[in-house]
Amino acid sequence: MNHSKQQNQEIVLAKHPEGAVTKDTFKFNDIDMPTCKDGEVLLKSIYVSVDPGMRGFMDKGDSDNAGKKFKLNEAITSRTVAQVIDSDNDDFKKGDIVHGRFAWKKYQSVSADDLEKVDPDLAPISTAVSMLGVTGLAAYFGMLKIGQPKQGETVVVSGAAGSVGSIASQIARIKGCKVIGIAGSPKKIDYLENDLGLDKGINYKETDDMEAAIKEACPNGVDVFFDNVGGELFDAVFANINEHARIAICGQIADYNKGEAPQGPRPMHTLTKKSARMEGFVVYDFKDEFDAAKKQIGKWYNDGKMVYKENLIEGFDNIPSAFIGLFEGDNIGKQMVKVGDTEGCDGEDNEK
Amino acid sequence: MNHSKQQNQEIVLAKHPEGAVTKDTFKFNDIDMPTCKDGEVLLKSIYVSVDPGMRGFMDKGDSDNAGKKFKLNEAITSRTVAQVIDSDNDDFKKGDIVHGRFAWKKYQSVSADDLEKVDPDLAPISTAVSMLGVTGLAAYFGMLKIGQPKQGETVVVSGAAGSVGSIASQIARIKGCKVIGIAGSPKKIDYLENDLGLDKGINYKETDDMEAAIKEACPNGVDVFFDNVGGELFDAVFANINEHARIAICGQIADYNKGEAPQGPRPMHTLTKKSARMEGFVVYDFKDEFDAAKKQIGKWYNDGKMVYKENLIEGFDNIPSAFIGLFEGDNIGKQMVKVGDTEGCDGEDNEK
Repeated sequence: MNHSKQQNQEIVLAKHPEGAVTKDTFKFNDIDMPTCKDGEVLLKSIYVSVDPGMRGFMDKGDSDNAGKKFKLNEAITSRTVAQVIDSDNDDFKKGDIVHGRFAWKKYQSVSADDLEKVDPDLAPISTAVSMLGVTGLAAYFGMLKIGQPKQGETVVVSGAAGSVGSIASQIARIKGCKVIGIAGSPKKIDYLENDLGLDKGINYKETDDMEAAIKEACPNGVDVFFDNVGGELFDAVFANINEHARIAICGQIADYNKGEAPQGPRPMHTLTKKSARMEGFVVYDFKDEFDAAKKQIGKWYNDGKMVYKENLIEGFDNIPSAFIGLFEGDNIGKQMVKVGDTEGCDGEDNEK
Repeated sequence: MNHSKQQNQEIVLAKHPEGAVTKDTFKFNDIDMPTCKDGEVLLKSIYVSVDPGMRGFMDKGDSDNAGKKFKLNEAITSRTVAQVIDSDNDDFKKGDIVHGRFAWKKYQSVSADDLEKVDPDLAPISTAVSMLGVTGLAAYFGMLKIGQPKQGETVVVSGAAGSVGSIASQIARIKGCKVIGIAGSPKKIDYLENDLGLDKGINYKETDDMEAAIKEACPNGVDVFFDNVGGELFDAVFANINEHARIAICGQIADYNKGEAPQGPRPMHTLTKKSARMEGFVVYDFKDEFDAAKKQIGKWYNDGKMVYKENLIEGFDNIPSAFIGLFEGDNIGKQMVKVGDTEGCDGEDNEK
């Protein structure tokens, strides 16, 4: 196939959104097909991940610890699975599947430093930026390293139907814990109880007294709390922690980054009374153990012990609407956009 | 000596204080000399410890996790060093020095289960209820197990001139850290810098912008924060923590136990951004390691690496005023009341 005859396109930030993101936030540009410069790798985008956390990067202002702000008229970037279609680097050869934070472009040439190989044997290749990417790794390390769940303990996960929470809660279940998931719709509660196999789901939107509901669901108290949400939901679970409880604060919620810290009850007294620990983390704290974690998650998945759900939208043109859809409706599962097919030597699509 | 001819006395709670404790809070009673019942040990009180945390136990109401409320017309209890003057228990013999939570009585007979032997070789016997008691153990385990200070790191201790803080900050200094102590008077700052050998003391009462003062004193950020105080002082230090900071919340401040948790900025975002840990503890979490800890603290003390200061008031009659004095003035060092002399076979006072 002669890629120079392919049409290439990019999606740039057309304007900083005020409030909700709309189609006007983005602009499509026809661009030239890139060529592989010295040491670079030419990529074809296959799966593009869209995440709520990207919303914060679309605002005006300087970049902060949570990531790089997008600039006007520059291509948006997000975690992407791509295929190598040309390479000037010995570590990557044509046909390899890779992932990284790439631009919303059909084709692009990138430095080999910016990409990592995907092992198609672990799980479907799209999961390289979800279940086997930062999402799954955050769940894995947050639950195992900070939460340290022991068999028979009670574990509560907030945002349990989300991409991090759904994996974190299943890991606790695999470790032999009683697992209570908190989510915000009947559809999600059904997913928690019937797909993920949790002991109970609690719909916080239909519960007047969350503290009492947690108490009822956790008669032996809460040993591990994996928190994706914060705020009053945090307080309700926190009021039920046991002695020596571990609370993992998951660093996924980018809009925490806006302005002053919200006010709430100070946790110090309870931490002392319960000899409890509250710990924040980002996945990169554990980067030496990424490979082992991916193998373990892949094994659980392939052994049928872990369920993972994706929402797939097809077409490069649909990336903006997939992103906008994150803030609407009631979808379950990691939102992905399939923007191209892999090209195997034997014509086989690797991700099947 | 015939103890039956000794006069015995007790101090009871005469009324629940409203606001400040006064002499009327207490009442002295002449009581009979006790006798040693089956398996009991007859004690003569030598050193009585008075602590601010006892104030909470004088209020009306039920006992809570922090300890037992004192009842009207019953003797107050506090940590006490005593000598065995008669024993019906094989583990304790006449002349032994022991400590425990005993009643404010000159003489009392207690169950052997309620007392522990004091090793007079470790340090002066009065320290069994201070530097080598819960005070020192809280400092030791909080700093070493939760704070985990590493050579060259920066450590901040609030309430650094207090009985826990002064030991915690010296342990960090011994571990090769840069140590900043926060306290509330020029006399205390002098004590921190010139007696305890800390790198800097900050008088929060004379500092308008504590956050900026901490930043200036800790140009490399704060790696360990040992907090005895909470509130806005916590916030000022917390704003300066480094990645992977450890924050030990010391469970010493009993009036935390009053009513609702105070409001303050939620720490979750910073914990996540910094991958930091905040952990509460009580010394009994580490009870298996008490003996080793006492030996280590005693060694530091005897090697001249650790300074420990006591304020000694003489006389059983002066226990109430020693307690009331805790809330007044500007005393440095653990407040103790010497209420009797030890009686050695050779007439030697062991605590010298």
